[in-house]
This record gives sequence, structure tokens and C-alpha cells, in this order.
Amino acid sequence: MTPILYQECIDACLKSMNACNHSYVASLKEYDLAVLRHSIRLDRECADICSFAIQAMTRQSPFVGSILRLCAEICDACAAENSNHIHIHCQACIDACRSCAEACRSISEVVEVYA
Amino acid sequence: MTPILYQECIDACLKSMNACNHSYVASLKEYDLAVLRHSIRLDRECADICSFAIQAMTRQSPFVGSILRLCAEICDACAAENSNHIHIHCQACIDACRSCAEACRSISEVVEVYA
Amino acid sequence: MTPILYQECIDACLKSMNACNHSYVASLKEYDLAVLRHSIRLDRECADICSFAIQAMTRQSPFVGSILRLCAEICDACAAENSNHIHIHCQACIDACRSCAEACRSISEVVEVYA
Amino acid sequence: MTPILYQECIDACLKSMNACNHSYVASLKEYDLAVLRHSIRLDRECADICSFAIQAMTRQSPFVGSILRLCAEICDACAAENSNHIHIHCQACIDACRSCAEACRSISEVVEVYA
Repeated sequence: MTPILYQECIDACLKSMNACNHSYVASLKEYDLAVLRHSIRLDRECADICSFAIQAMTRQSPFVGSILRLCAEICDACAAENSNHIHIHCQACIDACRSCAEACRSISEVVEVYA
Repeated sequence: MTPILYQECIDACLKSMNACNHSYVASLKEYDLAVLRHSIRLDRECADICSFAIQAMTRQSPFVGSILRLCAEICDACAAENSNHIHIHCQACIDACRSCAEACRSISEVVEVYA
Repeated sequence: MTPILYQECIDACLKSMNACNHSYVASLKEYDLAVLRHSIRLDRECADICSFAIQAMTRQSPFVGSILRLCAEICDACAAENSNHIHIHCQACIDACRSCAEACRSISEVVEVYA
Repeated sequence: MTPILYQECIDACLKSMNACNHSYVASLKEYDLAVLRHSIRLDRECADICSFAIQAMTRQSPFVGSILRLCAEICDACAAENSNHIHIHCQACIDACRSCAEACRSISEVVEVYA
């Protein structure tokens, strides 16, 4: 039902939200969670904007371009922070966030052209 | 990354959010949108709780049982309202909302048992 | 508890969300809702980003600057659309959205300087 | 613009979201954050449902009764968890969450009667 244009980006946002929330929960269970405090905060930030972006795409928001640019910015920051940590769940975030940032930027450029 | 338990329900919520937001946008473009005013409102309500439920599952919320029961209640109401309308996008909502309500109730019963 | 810096902007976002959601509900009850279809959509967009911005400020999001810039952009668009309509609830949106856009821009400039 | 009925409850939810997000941020900065791991998680859960409840009230959701019952349940759990901790920001949560739970239950009973 969602225009094909968005489907790939919705999937990328869902994977990123998933990875971030998984890492958030896992980090809060770690013995050494003190070193993960920034990562925990960014995981939540990233999951929240991904969730917002997903719904914006499904309702074909007229502001999808700007929303996805914001999502890409936060995904980049989350990937950067998680790359400071060797935990498997942090490493999984890096890939998911980077792919999501890339997908968001691709769409926001296409939307720009059509606007 | 999401526990397999939730994956099916996340998919059902995503499909329901998608169908509701698609119907919302399509309804607002209809010539006879006056007959769809209740449907438009319920589509938004349903999309919003589905979005909330999806994120709650990905972060393994301790309140997933109650959140999914609420989601099922709103999905049921949205399916009922949309069944008053013959528009294709309304009909598509009925199936998506009913499947979502069912998936949410299955999980909330399982969660109950484990709690 | 929220840093004083944000309190005024949180209030402005809450007023804007309130006015937009009130106009959304009232529009869907109007006899001539067909002329209000764009306004209905923008009211929802604006309420959703205001809600997101409020929570971002209360959790002192590191991305408050970018989030508030997006909020200001959507508030401006919502005010512009509502200024096409003479309904009292549309007129009430204009003021609330413009004040909110202004408050968001003030904060995002201050945040910029500190960053 | 919001019906007077809801104004007090919106304020209570805002105060609760504020206290929870403040405690969330403060907890993640504590030296002994390991003892606060459950509290951090519940603070986020509580802030998220409060945010959802606030928007639901401003858009006069037909599901306000059920949404506020869920909000009260999560506020109670968050107050209970925070009462295990002597940190000032945790103690501040207890009051805010309890007041919010009470306000939510009052409204949901009133709504019940009118429904």
C-alpha cells in the first residue's frame, strides 16, 4: 500500500529502530554499563526519530524530505557513538544506522527533485 | 534482533498502520469525504497506537501485554468503522486491522502467562 | 525540572499542538469539510512534530536544535494553510503555530551557539 | 482550547513526563548508574506513554479512557521502582508519577460514565 519509493527506507528505519532498541536494552543489562551511558542515550534518540520517520512515510507526509534528513543526522551520530564500543549489540547498531542514514538521504534527495 | 515471538506481531502492526494511513490520505482526497469523517479519525487513532506498539515491542517494554491489548481494542474499532464503507482503501483497512488485533491479543495472552 | 531555557518553548509547542488538534477535530465535524482537507492533514503533521519536540526538550535531546528547526518549518506551513480559512478554529491555529515557530527558532539559534 | 475536563490531566502528564525524562538523563550521569538500570528503563516507558496520553487528550481521542488507564498503570510501576532509590531526581519522579496516575484514573472513570 505504501508507495514503492518508500518501502526500502521504511525497512531500513525499522531495522535501525530495532537494532538501537535492542542495544539499549542490552546495554542496560551490561556489567560495565557506565562506559555505555552516551550510547544508551543515543540509541533512544535514534529509535525515536526512526519510529517518527516510519509513520511519516506511511502517511505520505508532505515533510518527508526534512524528516528524513533529520533521521539521517541522528542515525549518523548514533553510528559514530556505537563505533566506540566493542559489544556485539553496539556493532550491530553501526551497520543498521549507517544503512538507514543512507536510505533516508536517498529518499530526501528524490523528494527534493519532485517538490 | 527482535525476539522471534514479536516479529509476526510487529509485521501485523506495520501493515495495519500502513493500511490506516493509506486510507486516511486517500479518504481526504475523496469527493465524498463527508461520509468518511469518522473513518478518517479512527484511521489516525489506529495508526498512532500501532506505531506506539511497534516501538514498545522492539524495546521489549515490560508493559507489552497492556499496550497490545489497547492496540487490539483500537484496531477492532477501526475495522468496525471501516466496514461501513465500500471504498477499496477502507476495505483494505478491515483485514489489516483485524489481523493486527488478533496478533496483538495472541501476544498479550502469551506475555500474561510468562509475567 | 526542565531547564528554564526550554520552558517557554515547551509551552508554545503545547499550545500549537492543542490548537492544531482542536482544529483537526472541529474541521472533521464541519459541514463544508471538503474545503478543509489540506488543513486537516497539516494540522495532524503539526501536532505530531510538536508532540515530538516537547518530549525531545524534556529529555534534553542532543538534537534539540535540528528537531526544533523541523518543528518551525512545519508550524510555518500549517499557519500558512490555515490562513486560507475563515473558521475560528483555523484562525486560532495561525497564531499558535506562528508563536511556536518563533519560539522553536529562538531556541535552535541559542543551542547552535552553545554546541 | 482543550476541554477543561482534560486540562488538569494534561498538566499532570506533562509534569510526569518531565520528571521521568529529567531522572532518565540524570541517572545516566550518575557514578552509580548500575543500581539505576531498572529505573532508567521505566523512566523512558513512563515518559513515552505520558507523551502519547497528552496528544490523545488534545485530539479528544475516543479511546481516552483506555489510554489513560494504561498511562496510570505505567506511572504506578515507575513510581514504585523509583521509590527504591534515594536520589533526589528519583524521589521527584515518585510524586509526579503518582499524581499523574491519580489524574488519569479520575478522567478514565468520568469518561466511562459518559461513554
